[in-house]
Amino acid sequence: MDLLKGFISYTKQEQLFTTDQQILLAVSGGVDSVVMAHLFKEAGFRFTIAHCNFQLRGEESERDAAFVTALADKLGVMLHTVRFDTAVYADSNRVSIQVAARELRYGWLENIRRQSGSAFIATAHHMQDNVETVLMNLCKGTGIAGLHGILPKQGHIIRPLLFTQKEQLLAYATEYSTGFAEDSSNITVKYTRNFFRHKVIPVMQEIYPAVTANIAGSIDRFREAEELYEEALQRHKKRLVEQKGNTIMIPVLKLQKTRPLHTVAWEIFKDYGCSSAQLPQVLELLNSGSGKLVETASHRIIRDRQWLLIIPVEVQDAAVIVIEKERTFVPVTNGQLKIREAERTPATVIPTSSNIACLDKQEIHYPLVLRKWRQGDYFYPLGMRKKKKLSRFFIDQKLSLPQKEKVWVLESGKRIVWIAGMRIDDRFRITDNTTRMLVLEWEEK
Amino acid sequence: MDLLKGFISYTKQEQLFTTDQQILLAVSGGVDSVVMAHLFKEAGFRFTIAHCNFQLRGEESERDAAFVTALADKLGVMLHTVRFDTAVYADSNRVSIQVAARELRYGWLENIRRQSGSAFIATAHHMQDNVETVLMNLCKGTGIAGLHGILPKQGHIIRPLLFTQKEQLLAYATEYSTGFAEDSSNITVKYTRNFFRHKVIPVMQEIYPAVTANIAGSIDRFREAEELYEEALQRHKKRLVEQKGNTIMIPVLKLQKTRPLHTVAWEIFKDYGCSSAQLPQVLELLNSGSGKLVETASHRIIRDRQWLLIIPVEVQDAAVIVIEKERTFVPVTNGQLKIREAERTPATVIPTSSNIACLDKQEIHYPLVLRKWRQGDYFYPLGMRKKKKLSRFFIDQKLSLPQKEKVWVLESGKRIVWIAGMRIDDRFRITDNTTRMLVLEWEEK
Repeated sequence: MDLLKGFISYTKQEQLFTTDQQILLAVSGGVDSVVMAHLFKEAGFRFTIAHCNFQLRGEESERDAAFVTALADKLGVMLHTVRFDTAVYADSNRVSIQVAARELRYGWLENIRRQSGSAFIATAHHMQDNVETVLMNLCKGTGIAGLHGILPKQGHIIRPLLFTQKEQLLAYATEYSTGFAEDSSNITVKYTRNFFRHKVIPVMQEIYPAVTANIAGSIDRFREAEELYEEALQRHKKRLVEQKGNTIMIPVLKLQKTRPLHTVAWEIFKDYGCSSAQLPQVLELLNSGSGKLVETASHRIIRDRQWLLIIPVEVQDAAVIVIEKERTFVPVTNGQLKIREAERTPATVIPTSSNIACLDKQEIHYPLVLRKWRQGDYFYPLGMRKKKKLSRFFIDQKLSLPQKEKVWVLESGKRIVWIAGMRIDDRFRITDNTTRMLVLEWEEK
Repeated sequence: MDLLKGFISYTKQEQLFTTDQQILLAVSGGVDSVVMAHLFKEAGFRFTIAHCNFQLRGEESERDAAFVTALADKLGVMLHTVRFDTAVYADSNRVSIQVAARELRYGWLENIRRQSGSAFIATAHHMQDNVETVLMNLCKGTGIAGLHGILPKQGHIIRPLLFTQKEQLLAYATEYSTGFAEDSSNITVKYTRNFFRHKVIPVMQEIYPAVTANIAGSIDRFREAEELYEEALQRHKKRLVEQKGNTIMIPVLKLQKTRPLHTVAWEIFKDYGCSSAQLPQVLELLNSGSGKLVETASHRIIRDRQWLLIIPVEVQDAAVIVIEKERTFVPVTNGQLKIREAERTPATVIPTSSNIACLDKQEIHYPLVLRKWRQGDYFYPLGMRKKKKLSRFFIDQKLSLPQKEKVWVLESGKRIVWIAGMRIDDRFRITDNTTRMLVLEWEEK
């Protein structure tokens, strides 16, 4: 009866469900899930049973299915069953049998959960499973999130037996003669987990007999520690991360002073495709000059004066790039644009390179927009008083189709100011009245 | 040379010391500490060497001492040595040989450090030592603090080899023919540690060959995670803990709403003698009525209306207990005082029990003080117009010495208002003008 009390108390403590909710129990027929079903019955909770026949062990699979059918009958609850061609699925999806069984199982269970109006799916993971998971994570290398182990509640899945050990489940099964199908529960258990269960933990037990309970107790503390960790982390993120359009801006000085730097930086940048191997490169940007960048799987992280900018890669070429006043550097796939301001004095020499554009700052209004040219675009080529279609201009310049596809234009308030690397617009040219210039530089890659 | 680079880079990264500081190296003669000495030499750092002869292995101990003497000579640095009667010390202090060796070693090293003007003591702990420590902590049961392992810098001790594995130290010793004394480094290594080193970790390595490096990497992340944990924790403490004199006050409602409750409560109450086994009882106070209390090793934690009060046990009887307006309940060793206010109407019946005192609220000024009576104390016994010494009063009451020692008096503004459980002061009695009463109740244990 101690197990039943512990079970009821654990469901309350973790607020797994309310007594008016119906739970769908995943029952393989193994001792863990069979005892779980009995506990739900004894506690007077509302539940139905689901059983997957993976058809991987011939006769034995059929025996298990029959056992669970009889169990549902005995407990007087509804039974959902399914037969999977697990081997076929594994084959055609090129996954292992274990992965196949897991995917089939959770996909089907979630469907049944919804159809049957159940609030949650309950699985029979117990304390040993949890301890194994955490030890495996630790040995693989992990952060604090790898220490919370199997969560009691996660989405629509609950694990109401995490509080107890295998031995107690076996003792209950014996005391109440629940019966169970030997070995049937381990279809989704991996080699590595079995290795930890049978080779690693028993050795630890030689010196710390209570190692499972000790680690399980630690896991509970780690879970709470993680909440405090998250709380502090969110505070740092809020302090450091600013969104402007599709650009994320992070102030360099503030990030430099942040402690612990690695962890906070990692938690920020990993959301933008940064791998752990790339993190040191990103942190180097804190000490580099404007224009340096790191390309992650999905973003570019760019040092731009006192900012780190995070920009989605796909946005850069597909859509328009909005350039705020603060930016001095805009990388795209086939080149990069540099932007700065300068005084215009009588001594100023205007460079003749078509890759450098000097414009009258007074005529420019932020934000600027950098985008690929489009059919219908027109501008006033330098030296001309009337507008010209870009398509026409490109013909004059004898651009090939691939060349045309690479052309970027810079806009200010819907007016093209520069065909990057080619010609500026006459309306923005330096005049005798110009005192301040916007200097643009295009570097093709 | 990779080891040397890694060593220099690690000392910088962890800011272990500055190049103008002198370091005292603890060198046993084993491969770890011998390589450490060579690395300090190669890096051009300032250092001296200290060697302890524990005289536990006869000839071998002498051989090690001779080896280290030669090493200091070869490296051209000063050597400090000492001989310990470790066995005698262990015997007379009733500690194990390992504990004896450790106590003697660190005590002596710290003395030499100060005498020699060294900034830090360096020990040769490496990555495996660290991984073993964390695994042992985990198996014993721990919180997040048990996962940071051996710290690179802690007080006056630094561990500049934590970044590297034993194999690399051995390879360096071989490559540069440093020589070393076999086995001599393990005098302070415990049975449990050796068990993890030789029995547990090798099994884990069968399935995760890089387990040591993986766990070491995780430890670095846990260390940073702990910083964030501490940051959030300090914020909660500041929000929840208020000190008034020698009393700590925690608002019940605020604590009830705090998440994660267990961890935050534990981190607060453990500083006041609360054991982990007592924590559930303390948390029950959140749902109990005024007057319930938990006695920890050093404090009483008392539920008093909307507060939990934490009061040092020794203070209660030794010194004075300052009672603020908020308090309704004051427990002491031999009894407890309850305090409440009440209206005084014509219908009010004044209880006759000497354990209840009804006083004129208007005459009372907070804070009140509860203390043991002292020689020289006097008061105006109810019904008398002149003062009387307490010593005289006790003679009239025929109190024995032990009885007198238990007497508490309550003061308001240096005036005694009540000899608890015996007689009130006439100046505070209920008069025809009294509209509000202070009702005191004394319960002797």
